[in-house]
Amino acid sequence: MSEFDLIARIRARARSRSDVIAGIGDDAALLQVPSGMRLVVAMDTLNEGVHFPAGTRPADIGWKSLAVNLSDLAAMGAQPAWCTLSLSLPTAEGGWLDAFLDGFFDLAERHGIALVGGDTTRGPLSVCVTAHGFVGEGKALLRSGAKPGDDLWVSGTLGDAAAALAQWRNGVDVVPALKARLDRPDPRMSLGLALAGIANAAIDVSDGLLADAGHLCAQSGVGAEIEIEALPRSDALRGAFDSDACRILQAAGGDDYELCFSASPNARAVVQAGADRAATPVSRIGRIVAAGGVRALLPDGRDWTSKRPGYAHFADDGRIL
Amino acid sequence: MSEFDLIARIRARARSRSDVIAGIGDDAALLQVPSGMRLVVAMDTLNEGVHFPAGTRPADIGWKSLAVNLSDLAAMGAQPAWCTLSLSLPTAEGGWLDAFLDGFFDLAERHGIALVGGDTTRGPLSVCVTAHGFVGEGKALLRSGAKPGDDLWVSGTLGDAAAALAQWRNGVDVVPALKARLDRPDPRMSLGLALAGIANAAIDVSDGLLADAGHLCAQSGVGAEIEIEALPRSDALRGAFDSDACRILQAAGGDDYELCFSASPNARAVVQAGADRAATPVSRIGRIVAAGGVRALLPDGRDWTSKRPGYAHFADDGRIL
Repeated sequence: MSEFDLIARIRARARSRSDVIAGIGDDAALLQVPSGMRLVVAMDTLNEGVHFPAGTRPADIGWKSLAVNLSDLAAMGAQPAWCTLSLSLPTAEGGWLDAFLDGFFDLAERHGIALVGGDTTRGPLSVCVTAHGFVGEGKALLRSGAKPGDDLWVSGTLGDAAAALAQWRNGVDVVPALKARLDRPDPRMSLGLALAGIANAAIDVSDGLLADAGHLCAQSGVGAEIEIEALPRSDALRGAFDSDACRILQAAGGDDYELCFSASPNARAVVQAGADRAATPVSRIGRIVAAGGVRALLPDGRDWTSKRPGYAHFADDGRIL
Repeated sequence: MSEFDLIARIRARARSRSDVIAGIGDDAALLQVPSGMRLVVAMDTLNEGVHFPAGTRPADIGWKSLAVNLSDLAAMGAQPAWCTLSLSLPTAEGGWLDAFLDGFFDLAERHGIALVGGDTTRGPLSVCVTAHGFVGEGKALLRSGAKPGDDLWVSGTLGDAAAALAQWRNGVDVVPALKARLDRPDPRMSLGLALAGIANAAIDVSDGLLADAGHLCAQSGVGAEIEIEALPRSDALRGAFDSDACRILQAAGGDDYELCFSASPNARAVVQAGADRAATPVSRIGRIVAAGGVRALLPDGRDWTSKRPGYAHFADDGRIL
């Protein structure tokens, strides 16, 4: 297969939308942003051996490469619309590509997103995706809007994906429910949309809760107090690790793709109603304070500390346990 | 340096624009597309060892990674606005990054483009860029608009970058004027803007003229006759290769980043005036015909043939001489 055979194979499976004037097959995509809406653009890359181990199922790589970008749109409160895909492959294998596209388009179609362009090149396995969406003027969820006194919330449960990675690294059988969270993260699109214009600030949890809450606080010029025992824990995680390990995985494990957001205490009922409409569980985990960074507190008020707040490329090997 | 140090280093150098509501530092960029304009999005990746040899100067990699994307916008007739950058690096070296950014921002600032997001990850050296621009409704240059009877045009000169690559592979001294075309392609933004609404179809020449003219014809459902002796040739190329080699390099060599476009013969004066305004030389190199693929003709009317029309990933090693 040549590059153009691969592109034809991708193009044959890409759905369009009425706002795509020209998609795959021209020099660039030609698109129509709805009048009065703001454009939201996210871009994230997954590299073999860094973001996923060699041998990961191609369908999972396809799903996850889009999911991590949609999660960024969700954290902005955006409605997803289009994506582009740059795929670097060591060899041109049709079977691998088809399986990759199975996962990619499965997620794309669940959210009505059109693949509108990109490229296919030879190189070490790497997947770069951009996702484009819309948000109404003044409705976007920024990292910079948190205010002292806000509640701090998080969606879903934390630590499951990191737990699966820890089990895999430790050479033990990976619990399927945890592995599903690592391989097939479910971006919180409905919740993001429900929170647009309601939450004061939001970020998606990809590096680890404490790290990402730190980014949100830094951008907002505030601090946060997080009740470590309030972090939502899945039954699968509880069954697989002791309580100390669970805390570490929940507070510092990456790849959650949950939303962490702040909102006024006056908005509690509205937040909960939005989460209910989005069929997404949310938990209040602490509060925004004026300063002091992000503190994680034990029930008795003492500080809980972990050796690292989350993952950073180049800085460490990603192990937290 | 950690990932966040690298991001801070990039962010410190990124300029903004009034239509960037939130740029680097949030989950995604928040942008404002001008009312009534269409959005144009291009995405291309450069991998070490594939698109550029190991040891290429980082400033040249930075320049070229943006240039190849701007060239796609030019081929759509778009005004560039924003870009995102995903940079995979084997190690976090501040000096390398600074040099890369020198080249990247040099080109970005020439065209008033803001870097608004992306990511920085560990992995084999790879640079993925998306470029975003605008074009008026109905003004975009598509590949699909060529009509039988149209003139076929190309900008600048052809074969220079491929000539530099051939010299490098042959182990001879690379002529500086040719090397500059390989390392620092100058995207034809002004010409693309001048042709918007005037040319019937356009493509940028990245894989090789015959290959790219073939893509344009395939999308338009037409054929083309190209006069091989009409292809524009630089003095540098003429001085470095014999006439047969020049023909091959011009017709099939990649990395030109010139615009190939078709326009009605009635528009010749308008095309020339637009090219003059853009200070970009253009040459008529043939005509669009109803069918028959892309033929390259010698002055006596016989077919000129080369062993390959251009570069395709996975299909060959890229050597044309």
